[in-house]
Amino acid sequence: MSYEMQDENHKNKEVNFQEKLAEKAAHVEELLQKYLPDEQCAPKTIVEAMNYSLLAGGKRLRPILMQEMYQMFGGEGHGIENFMAAIEMIHTYSLVHDDLPAMDNDEYRRGRKTTWAVYGDAMGILAGDGLLNYAFETAVQAFTGCRTVEDYQRVASALRVLGFNAGIGGMIGGQTADIEAEQQSDPLTEAQILYIHTHKTGALIKAAMMIGAILAGMPREWKTELGQCAMDIGIAFQIQDDILDVTGDSGEMGKPVGSDAANGKQTYVTLHGVEEAGAEVERLSNEAIEILRRMPGDSSFMEDLVNYLIHRRY
Amino acid sequence: MSYEMQDENHKNKEVNFQEKLAEKAAHVEELLQKYLPDEQCAPKTIVEAMNYSLLAGGKRLRPILMQEMYQMFGGEGHGIENFMAAIEMIHTYSLVHDDLPAMDNDEYRRGRKTTWAVYGDAMGILAGDGLLNYAFETAVQAFTGCRTVEDYQRVASALRVLGFNAGIGGMIGGQTADIEAEQQSDPLTEAQILYIHTHKTGALIKAAMMIGAILAGMPREWKTELGQCAMDIGIAFQIQDDILDVTGDSGEMGKPVGSDAANGKQTYVTLHGVEEAGAEVERLSNEAIEILRRMPGDSSFMEDLVNYLIHRRY
Repeated sequence: MSYEMQDENHKNKEVNFQEKLAEKAAHVEELLQKYLPDEQCAPKTIVEAMNYSLLAGGKRLRPILMQEMYQMFGGEGHGIENFMAAIEMIHTYSLVHDDLPAMDNDEYRRGRKTTWAVYGDAMGILAGDGLLNYAFETAVQAFTGCRTVEDYQRVASALRVLGFNAGIGGMIGGQTADIEAEQQSDPLTEAQILYIHTHKTGALIKAAMMIGAILAGMPREWKTELGQCAMDIGIAFQIQDDILDVTGDSGEMGKPVGSDAANGKQTYVTLHGVEEAGAEVERLSNEAIEILRRMPGDSSFMEDLVNYLIHRRY
Repeated sequence: MSYEMQDENHKNKEVNFQEKLAEKAAHVEELLQKYLPDEQCAPKTIVEAMNYSLLAGGKRLRPILMQEMYQMFGGEGHGIENFMAAIEMIHTYSLVHDDLPAMDNDEYRRGRKTTWAVYGDAMGILAGDGLLNYAFETAVQAFTGCRTVEDYQRVASALRVLGFNAGIGGMIGGQTADIEAEQQSDPLTEAQILYIHTHKTGALIKAAMMIGAILAGMPREWKTELGQCAMDIGIAFQIQDDILDVTGDSGEMGKPVGSDAANGKQTYVTLHGVEEAGAEVERLSNEAIEILRRMPGDSSFMEDLVNYLIHRRY
């Protein structure tokens, strides 16, 4: 094959992947629409604020990862949908609370006003609480389709994984460490930065992938490797985020760049520089891809997704 | 029997009830200690803030109601404990977030500094999030003891009731309406006040009683009446709270009295006066007691509890 043809092939493959990714994200949007809280059942304002937060766009990475794992481990049907919606609700509530004046005090996210900036502080707190609670309500509805003890066990196990990774042993723990780090005068250690990454970002990505696999009936022996793969992806994703804060284009990203440096925020990048950080992203992604290739099912989309995540520009 | 003997009997009965109530509350404290989040698994500060909030005392009314219903409907063993701890965590997180500067801005509750006043705004938000999430984690652990499909169904059903009543269709919905009412210049209608009472206070009390009965295997035909009984108790409890804000003693209550009037807050009492409000509390309590007497099991403690709640002075 000539270089030109190879190049053409590569481009076609990428276009193909982008189309698939857009399709999957559109499927998640549909799902979210379906599971949106209903204005009939609650005060209009909070439902509006929750829906405003949920429909703010974003990559929908967590539900997509969940569904991919579900399919790779042979899951069929719609049993996964409640959890796909639930994990995006949890991710969303964490952003809504992060943006509050008492936390990061951000007025814009993805080029649009944050929830509290539109609905006020009090409603920002309540909308976040509402989304977290509604996530569990939505996930618990997954029991409706259960018939056998094994069906129930899978959903119960998925709920456990969701609860733990969203909580103080996972995402909330990472958020706490992040807030504390901002108030710390000494420079952060590498261990602290890793703790924040693995918990604030990694935990929910891990939950997404584990839940997809659990609901599909993943054999027990995959648990450790899948956890490792998910954590690699989560940390790589977060370091890439920190790299983009230095090298990215604010127009493409919908938020100002250089904000970490301006806020004196320490990241893997401030500690090791862009180049070494990029190499670490590459190493983690390769490790993740190796594990994905050993898994049952077709891993091609997941491999493309990992490659996309580390080369993304926003 | 002479009047004196009757009076003596009545006193003995009351002492007896107070002892039982204190025992039950002490049992809940023990349970909460057992289910407290562990500092090994999360950043020290958030675990401290959560435990500070959880161990702030209070009547522990919701877990006590849950356990009573469990026993009245023939529930046995410890299967209920996860939910007893979980509902108190949810009640506690709602207070932690209510007290925040962006919400009611309260620095004291039950005579002691509120969570944000000790740990700061950001940690107040995170500790509340942590408690809500940990409540679901704790409740989900109840699946551990399940063997049969019926076991799983009961716990799943209890989770549904917990989620709905804690969420925007319940407590969070009531809290939203309450915040909106404060910003409203027109006087509140009776329907608005009733909405706030039934949702902000009633829903979680209803959830407590329903969950106890569900986990004990309550026959379906009791559902509506039990819901009615619980709602009567919840509304009576809230109106009594509003009465105490006018007639209570700030020393006994551990918080300032007259705060509703000072804040221009409208309640059933501002609408109808103390006397009519007291009569409504009496009517609701009597209705609740009538239902309790028709239920299976020994309702004597529950009857005493309802009487105690409407005659309490703090």
